[in-house]
Formats: sequence, C-alpha cells, structure tokens
Amino acid sequence: MNLLSRLIVIILFAGIPLFAAKLPNFVVIFCDDLGYGDLGCYGHPCIQTPNLDRMASEGVKFTQFYAAAPVCTPSRAALLTGRLPVRSGMCSDKRRVLFPDSAGGLPQKEITLAESLKTKGYATAAIGKWHLGHLPQYLPTNNGFDTYFGIPYSNDMDRDVAKAPKYREACKQAKIEYFNVPLMRGTKELERPAQQETITRRYTEETIKFIKTNKNQPFFCYLAHSLPHVPLFRDKPFVGVSNGGIYGDVIEEIDWSVGQVLKTLQDEGLAENTLVWFTSDNGPWLIFETHGGSAGLLRDGKGSTWEGGMREPGIAWWPGKIKPHTNHAISSTMDIFTTCLTLAGIKVPQDRVIDGVNLSSILFKGGKGSRDTMFFYRGEQLYAVRKGPWKAHYITRSAYGNSKPEKHDPPILYHLGHDPSEKYNLAQENPKVLTAIANVVKEHNSKLVRGKNQLNDRIQK
Amino acid sequence: MNLLSRLIVIILFAGIPLFAAKLPNFVVIFCDDLGYGDLGCYGHPCIQTPNLDRMASEGVKFTQFYAAAPVCTPSRAALLTGRLPVRSGMCSDKRRVLFPDSAGGLPQKEITLAESLKTKGYATAAIGKWHLGHLPQYLPTNNGFDTYFGIPYSNDMDRDVAKAPKYREACKQAKIEYFNVPLMRGTKELERPAQQETITRRYTEETIKFIKTNKNQPFFCYLAHSLPHVPLFRDKPFVGVSNGGIYGDVIEEIDWSVGQVLKTLQDEGLAENTLVWFTSDNGPWLIFETHGGSAGLLRDGKGSTWEGGMREPGIAWWPGKIKPHTNHAISSTMDIFTTCLTLAGIKVPQDRVIDGVNLSSILFKGGKGSRDTMFFYRGEQLYAVRKGPWKAHYITRSAYGNSKPEKHDPPILYHLGHDPSEKYNLAQENPKVLTAIANVVKEHNSKLVRGKNQLNDRIQK
Repeated sequence: MNLLSRLIVIILFAGIPLFAAKLPNFVVIFCDDLGYGDLGCYGHPCIQTPNLDRMASEGVKFTQFYAAAPVCTPSRAALLTGRLPVRSGMCSDKRRVLFPDSAGGLPQKEITLAESLKTKGYATAAIGKWHLGHLPQYLPTNNGFDTYFGIPYSNDMDRDVAKAPKYREACKQAKIEYFNVPLMRGTKELERPAQQETITRRYTEETIKFIKTNKNQPFFCYLAHSLPHVPLFRDKPFVGVSNGGIYGDVIEEIDWSVGQVLKTLQDEGLAENTLVWFTSDNGPWLIFETHGGSAGLLRDGKGSTWEGGMREPGIAWWPGKIKPHTNHAISSTMDIFTTCLTLAGIKVPQDRVIDGVNLSSILFKGGKGSRDTMFFYRGEQLYAVRKGPWKAHYITRSAYGNSKPEKHDPPILYHLGHDPSEKYNLAQENPKVLTAIANVVKEHNSKLVRGKNQLNDRIQK
Repeated sequence: MNLLSRLIVIILFAGIPLFAAKLPNFVVIFCDDLGYGDLGCYGHPCIQTPNLDRMASEGVKFTQFYAAAPVCTPSRAALLTGRLPVRSGMCSDKRRVLFPDSAGGLPQKEITLAESLKTKGYATAAIGKWHLGHLPQYLPTNNGFDTYFGIPYSNDMDRDVAKAPKYREACKQAKIEYFNVPLMRGTKELERPAQQETITRRYTEETIKFIKTNKNQPFFCYLAHSLPHVPLFRDKPFVGVSNGGIYGDVIEEIDWSVGQVLKTLQDEGLAENTLVWFTSDNGPWLIFETHGGSAGLLRDGKGSTWEGGMREPGIAWWPGKIKPHTNHAISSTMDIFTTCLTLAGIKVPQDRVIDGVNLSSILFKGGKGSRDTMFFYRGEQLYAVRKGPWKAHYITRSAYGNSKPEKHDPPILYHLGHDPSEKYNLAQENPKVLTAIANVVKEHNSKLVRGKNQLNDRIQK
C-alpha cells in the first residue's frame, strides 16, 4: 500500500468525508410594500427591472408566494421565525405595527433564522429596516445578527411636526428633515435623521462589504430595504430614470442593488454556493396613489387579506443548483426559514409550531411542494384561509382608509386558479370545499397558542 | 481569365448581386379577446405559456402595444390595412362588428398586407377567423390571400335558437351544436357547425403545412385564432391541463400552437429569415367572468377605450435578427403593416393615409421608435388620445353591459407611466398637456376622411 492508498483507507474507516459539503450561504433581500405587479418579470409595463428579471429567469419565479401578514412588523417576525405572527404575539388589532413609542419587540424565546444559523458558525448581518423592536434587547444584534446597519422602524415614522406638513402630504412631498428616523450601527445611532436619498445605495455597499469580508466562511445576510415604503427617496443617478415615475425610480434603484449583490457573489466565486431570495413584506400601499405600487391583477393591497395585500413577488436564485422555472405552488416567506435551516443541516426547532415548510424539492426539482394551506391574519384575527386553489374569507376589509370589517357567514369563496382577482364568489356551489376549509380552521385553532401581545404596550414616560 | 473569373466580372458589371437579399417571411399570430395579463410573460400567475415566454425572451416583448379598436371587426381591418378603421368605414356605432346578416365587408379599394406582399411574389394564407365580410367578394381569397381555411366571423354567432339556451348561458355551457358557424376552405363551406374543439389544432396543422409547402419562396401566413373568444373549446389533450381553468386550457393550447409554429420554422431552417408577430384584436371580455381573460393591472376590457380594452401582449420574434429586449415604446397592430412592407422592400401606399409606422429600428436596435400618439375610437367616435405618456379621455364608457357614454369637458387625463391603471385624473394640474393633445385631435380631424360605413347594412332577404 502506498501512502495515498493508506490515507484513503484511513479516511474511509474514520468516516471522514474527503470533501466536506460546504455550508451554503444565504442572502435574503426583503423589500417594503412592494406590490405583486411591480417588477418587469411580474408584468409591470413601465418599471424596468433587468436584474430581477434575470434573477427570475435563472432561478425560481414563484407566482403564489405569500407574506405571512399584510403589514410590516408581523410579516417580518414571521420571515425570521418561520412562524405565524399570532404565535409570537407580534401582531395586534389595536396597533398593527410597532411605533417609535412601542415598548415591545420580538420575544427572546423566539428563535430567529440568524440565531439558528449561528449554531453552525454562520457570519450574520442585518442590513436595512428592522421593525421588530427598537429597545436595545430587541435589536438585531440581540437576535442572532453579528452586525446591524439600518433604521429600526419604518421610514415614515418620527415625523417632525414642527417642520413637516400633515402626514400624507409629508410622505408625498417628502423631505429628509420631515422624518426624524435614526440610522443605526449595532445599537448606536449613527445619523439622525437618516439621509434617506442614499439609503438604498448605502445598504448595498454594506452588503457587498459584508459578503467580501466573510467569503471564507458561511454567511447569512438579511438585506431589508426600507423602500419602496413611503416617503420615497432615491439617489441622484436614479432621479427621473424610470417611465414609472418616482415609484419606478425607487424600484429601479433596488433592481440595481440586486444586480450589485448578484455580481459581487459571482465575482467572488460565491454564487454557486449561495442561495439568494428576493421578496417583500406585504402588498402595495394603494392609498398613496402614484407613490404606492401595484398588485397587478390581484385584488386590493397592503393592510388587507385580499391577495394583493399578501401575495408577493418571490424569487430564489442559486446558479448551478436551482432548476430555473416558474413555480405555481403555494409558498411563503415563512418557508425561507425552514428551507435555509434544512440546507444548512440544522433541525427546525422541535419545541414549538413552525409554519414554514422546506421548499428544497421545488428549488432543485420543480413541482408542487408540500404546502397546501395558507392562513391570512389581519392583526390577531384569522380573516381567510387558502386550501389548494380555494380561498375562503370569513371576514374581509379593504386596505386602510375608512373601511369596516365585514363578516361572512357562510364565508365567501374564490377559486384562485380560475379567478386570481377574487371576483366571483362560488360558496353556494361548493359546500364541500367550505367544509374542508372549516376543518382546516378547526384543526388550526385547536392547536393555536397565542403569544403574549408585543405591539400594544408603550414606553412609560 | 478562367471561366469563374469571367463570370464574376460579368456579374459585377451587370450589377447583378451575387446573393440577392432573400425576402423575409412573415407570420402574424392573432388571438381573439386575449387580455394584456393572460400570458406568463405578462404576469399571469396561473396560466402557463412556456412557448410564448420563450418567444418573448428571444424577441421583443412590447409593453405598450395597441390594437386599433376595442372590438373585433375594426381591429382586424386596421391590422390588415395599417389604417384606423374609421378611414375604411369598418367601424360603427350601431353595429359594432359584422354579423351573419351583414351585407358589408372590407372595401375593395383598401389594400391589405397580403395584397401588397403579392406584388413581390409572396405566397399568402389566411387561416382562422376572418370577420371582414363573409359575402364572396369580401373573403380572404378576394383580399390578397391565395388560400383560406377558417370561420368567417365570430365563434359565438349563428346560435341555433332551437338547440341552444340563451346567449350567455350558451357561451358558458357551450356545446358545438349551439353555434352553427361554418368552417370554410377558400369560398366553400367545409363543415357546419364548425367542430370547435379541434379548431386550434387544425389551424395549427394548416399553418405548418402552408409553411412546409412554401418554404422555397417568400410567404406570409395570417394565423388568426378564433379563440379565446367565447364559447371556449379546446382539444382533448388540453382539457383540464391548466391551473387557470377552461380559459387557461384554451390559452395553453394556443401556446402549444405557437410552439409548433416556431419549431416548424426552426426545423425547416426558416427561422432566421422569418419575422413572427404575436398579438390579439382587443382586450378580455370581462362580462364572461372566468370564461374571459384578464387585462392585468390595466383598467377595463374588451369594448372600452380604457387601456384594458386595447392594449395587448405584443411579441416579435426573428432569431439572429431581433435584439431581444422588452420595449416600452408606443406601438400598434397597424405598425405590423408598415414594418412588413418596409422589410419586403415595398413602399406603403402613397395615395391614402397610413397610420402604421415602421418598427424596424425597435426590432433591430431597441429604442423609442417613431410613434408618439395613439387614437382610441369606440365605433366611429374618438373617445381618447394618447400622446407620449399622457392619455386624455373625451368620452368614457365601460365595457358592454348597461354602461352609458360619459362626456368629459375638460377631458380627464392620466399619466400612463406613473399610473398605468388610469386611476388618478391629472387634468387640472396639466393644462398644457391638454392643449397639446387638443392640437393633435384638431390636426387629426382636419385630415380625416371617413370611409363609407360598412357595418350597418344587412343582407336583403
């Protein structure tokens, strides 16, 4: 036996793999208030998104990809924990999201994707908008992220009432000084008000720096753009570039940013070991008219449990690994949690309900996946349930404004395949479908443990 | 000098080109009532159109491509003549399209694309729905087409009142025998009622046969599918294949057909000398609910001059010649006429107004093209005008149903870039835009010669 043969025998007997599978890197690019119809590859006729279009054509373009809530805070909690926000208490009927005077945040007992990945030695960074609590104990660096650079809540908060006009006008005729939102690094304020014109560019630069710095170890980057949430800002090179107006400019800058991130991964030789996700927290904020996006053919928008409020562009990219295709399976931001953990060889937490499912088979082989249901909560209440192509609404309420909740008993029922715009109620003709969905609800409710509400309490002055 | 050298000298001196540029072939695939949002590449979340998606990604995908009318007969007249239907008289306020009892049709003095191409020796075929007159003198074979195979008017006409229920029910619970529409070859009835289940397949087979038969000479094939106009029919292999229901099945069969046509062109070595267009005559017929399509984020549908009534998917494919890209220039079915003639080295008729513009520079180089305006007629009346991104509506009326025309003075004004769904009237803020559009209208009207009405007369019994 020569030396090489001996070595091979030793390795085989010792059970040491010759080439240990490298842990994949993860990048999650998460927008704010992006509509289902806002990208070129999702049918927008004016806004140009060549980088996202390429990402979609090289990866999986999901057409039934759901955020777990129609507003910001609960949706983000669900993404990072793989759990419906009602379980963590990160949703509320009174205060739908966290505000600068909120005392709560993501409970310590929740396990974030970053915390899980840390157990395998991942470098982790949160860049962009957080909105899961801004008191020190709730910040990203206390939730599994090594570093944090971004704004702690929405970019339309901390309005300076001395300088700014009324809220809606301040958002649409926006100036930096109207919104006294801090930009933070770690747990420290870096800049106040955040200079929002350059914020997308700076998030991008931070992301690229993080990727380059950590290229020799597995990493997870959570890049949560604070735009296209109003007030809209973009850097000088993007002023007036879009046929789609200021909203289009903002999307086109985000598209540029996506291109920069993908290019960095490719230039650094990391692309074939990195899974990149792109999606958003909820649908377009329609009351802001041309400063809000479009849900395409889907009904309604942000704040509502109609499809336009929660269905989002969803793209997964991993060159050489993913089978490029358009996928029509039901899928969710919560599935990112379960999929990434599984790919990193980490078991999802066994001591609690995890709502995310593993999308690996969809990514690598195409097909239908394993998710058959989706729950549509508005605040703490279950408004609608999807099972297969059918969606039953128990309560409906249009996005914000003066709308009132409307209860439906029997529920109204839509076939999202034949009727993606939710126009034609088929409840009467399909009693068995209603029964099947009622059973899903019963099962869901019987096991539901509601987390203690985290959104209602205010900081004591 | 050897023989070859002598030959070359003779050729050079005689001015005979060694390789005469081959005339390009043209295929125009024209759907019926297809919505802007009905294809995967235009954002539909359920209907799968892999062949059209590929055609779009390899060619030009137009996002501002307009039919010249919101209903069938005038739209088809415009496509084949390059002229607004009001010039040929092929539109009417009384009878919006031709019916089986109509006496009129496309006037002989109109010059069709087929007639023009015949002057350069093109083989020409019309396959599918005609709807430009069904008396012998109006049929395709009297309008420049060597052959014709198809139905002479819409597939919902000639309802057999003895066998069929009321119109809408007959369309939605369709049976072959409800609609006594003839299938014709040349000027002869071949089959009656047309066996509509197999009609898309048979149109496709005819097209393939025509291409193969004429591959050694320039050819023009006008493949005008009679679907997805109601009543919906599809061949057995497509029953229940689509997530999008019966409407999706029908689109997926048309997508299959497109794939067959492109494959034939490639297999025969013709693809690099053939320009293929894909578009439709008008928007989705919304009153037919899940049997009608979707205009995506565009407002309203068939019959109306809102964007959903006239903006269509528009794809041009010519491998090796076309620069693949998404194009946002204003363009129209009428431009197919001018573009094809120009590419065939034929001057457009000089003795009449031609509304089509040459899209060659868009096809081969990308860019903005030369069309700055679009006129939106409902019947004989000018309802709206687009100039650049702005669209002024002088009259609006929703698609069919009990809607009434509503006059607007001053007109209502939308910015189709910032507001593609025509939601936010900006007339008050933009008086100069209104003036500019008013001047366009004035200019247009000053030169308009209305053709004698062809749609109102009925056959004398």
